Amino acid sequence: MKLATYKDGSRDGQLVVVARDLSIAHYATGIAHQLQQVLDDWNFLSPQLQDLYDALNRARDSSASAGLARHAFPFDPRQCMAPLPRAYQWVNGSVYRNPAALQGPASTAGSPVLYQGASDDFLGPCDEVHCAREADGIDFEAGVAIITGDVRLGASPAQALDGIRLLLLSNALSLRQLMQAELAQGLGPLQSRPATAFSPVAVTPDEVGTAWAQGRLDLTLQSSWNGRKVGLCEAGPEMRFHFGQLIAHLCKTRRLRAGCIVGAGAVSNTDASHGYSCIADKRALEIMQDGQPMTEFMKFGDTIRIEMKGRDGQSVFGAIEQEIVPLEKAAAPL
Amino acid sequence: MKLATYKDGSRDGQLVVVARDLSIAHYATGIAHQLQQVLDDWNFLSPQLQDLYDALNRARDSSASAGLARHAFPFDPRQCMAPLPRAYQWVNGSVYRNPAALQGPASTAGSPVLYQGASDDFLGPCDEVHCAREADGIDFEAGVAIITGDVRLGASPAQALDGIRLLLLSNALSLRQLMQAELAQGLGPLQSRPATAFSPVAVTPDEVGTAWAQGRLDLTLQSSWNGRKVGLCEAGPEMRFHFGQLIAHLCKTRRLRAGCIVGAGAVSNTDASHGYSCIADKRALEIMQDGQPMTEFMKFGDTIRIEMKGRDGQSVFGAIEQEIVPLEKAAAPL
Repeated sequence: MKLATYKDGSRDGQLVVVARDLSIAHYATGIAHQLQQVLDDWNFLSPQLQDLYDALNRARDSSASAGLARHAFPFDPRQCMAPLPRAYQWVNGSVYRNPAALQGPASTAGSPVLYQGASDDFLGPCDEVHCAREADGIDFEAGVAIITGDVRLGASPAQALDGIRLLLLSNALSLRQLMQAELAQGLGPLQSRPATAFSPVAVTPDEVGTAWAQGRLDLTLQSSWNGRKVGLCEAGPEMRFHFGQLIAHLCKTRRLRAGCIVGAGAVSNTDASHGYSCIADKRALEIMQDGQPMTEFMKFGDTIRIEMKGRDGQSVFGAIEQEIVPLEKAAAPL
Repeated sequence: MKLATYKDGSRDGQLVVVARDLSIAHYATGIAHQLQQVLDDWNFLSPQLQDLYDALNRARDSSASAGLARHAFPFDPRQCMAPLPRAYQWVNGSVYRNPAALQGPASTAGSPVLYQGASDDFLGPCDEVHCAREADGIDFEAGVAIITGDVRLGASPAQALDGIRLLLLSNALSLRQLMQAELAQGLGPLQSRPATAFSPVAVTPDEVGTAWAQGRLDLTLQSSWNGRKVGLCEAGPEMRFHFGQLIAHLCKTRRLRAGCIVGAGAVSNTDASHGYSCIADKRALEIMQDGQPMTEFMKFGDTIRIEMKGRDGQSVFGAIEQEIVPLEKAAAPL
């Protein structure tokens, strides 16, 4: 099934179930108001949502005007918050052998590179990105993420895989010029990783069929910067650690509680013809080839679009579509 | 006022208001079920809680059996979860000039050292600490923390101070033998910082009177390890950055949303006669003095007690009292 969170003026929004083709949606009000509730009580609530989802798809297929379809409405990604507008944990990684990672913190042989991110304030898929300074080195970072249920301390990678509830896309915005100084301190990024955005819908793994296999999502992640396709990266094969391994790494010394979001970082392929999922990777490649970076970071007014299509050619998660907006033009200050 | 969260079998517990002397408490049910709700809607809900708190203190003082006092009950810290049993953000720091920090990541002149911690699963003040291996270097870390309301992007330290809603104590458990390798990667601690515990109650700053001044809590933090007092550290004067500065640092590139917990790390004093708030500090001092550490980390069965008294000699937050328990003896696996 496919789930989204609609804006309603509150901090956590309203849970909606979205038809497979993303055409129509239905409030989940009778079942749960928020996605976190569902994650907290997955075995009880998710079958009810699945029933609603099945009915919604049937209504869509039959173009029926009776019954459930009367309360369905056209799905609009611009009305979406992040599926979890705020979460109790967001851990992102650098799990691909990407050019920027070769210059940055190196993954040791048996251990993935992960960092704890801020999870109190996510952006919706079409929300503006408010930045104070272009000079901070504004960079998108297109990636695949998962949302967990409860996972126990000491879980094996296989057990951890069973704890995965939903898949989604992320745009982990980065301020690259602030990052090196923070990483040099050893304590991870803070100012250099402002609010992350997520795709309009989060989906259960069965939605992508065999493309989800052993903790990897074997589909192509498309990134378009100012309308130009800059990345068509394969998300599956070159992930050095699968999501079960990432979760097991986190659970080595403590348990994870329902609703943790874990990302694998910028998707990257060894074959550079696939393009890039973050500008830092492109620049790192330029440095390796030409001694200096040619591509500049994002400017105010720039746009980024991130999407992934299933093997049927349909958009799985809907698209992240964001514009970089200077802080003084931000419509709604807190 | 003083607020706590009582265990009720749910993930978020039940909000209770606790009398100033920590003797009795009263469910806040008619006002709010959870502390996060109050933080989300502080200006509307906190005055109602304050009224209940005032009535509770009056009932306590008059030993009246009528009215409100009939529904009050003896306050028991062992029934407490963390005031926020899970939170949308937990950022901890290393803000004192402590011996271990001198060996670890150094604070640059104008910039505090902070790291993003896990906030999906906090421990109550008297909950067991479940550890897999003594060899991981189990260490307590007694500190002072604050809980914020919303703080806007770009807030000044003075504006950030206005965003502080509550004060509390933390025990940020550390696995020191895992930490160096994680910090060397640059991305901050993950496995080396398992679940953090917090004091029984969180209090509004007015509860400590003039001891809370300009973002510093000028009281003595007591740490007792296996019943022996090892730390009587002054929390105020040697904090190199006050809490407003810490929050402003976080808000340089993004806003903070209500319910973020920010800690200042192990309290430490230049005068070593005050003792220590974490074993790493004691060991670092031994290394500096004798070339090698003498004090070992915590063993299974060890206990740690952390408390802070006000200028009236009364416990402000109640005590954190925890025992280190091997994983295989953990009573309740997830």
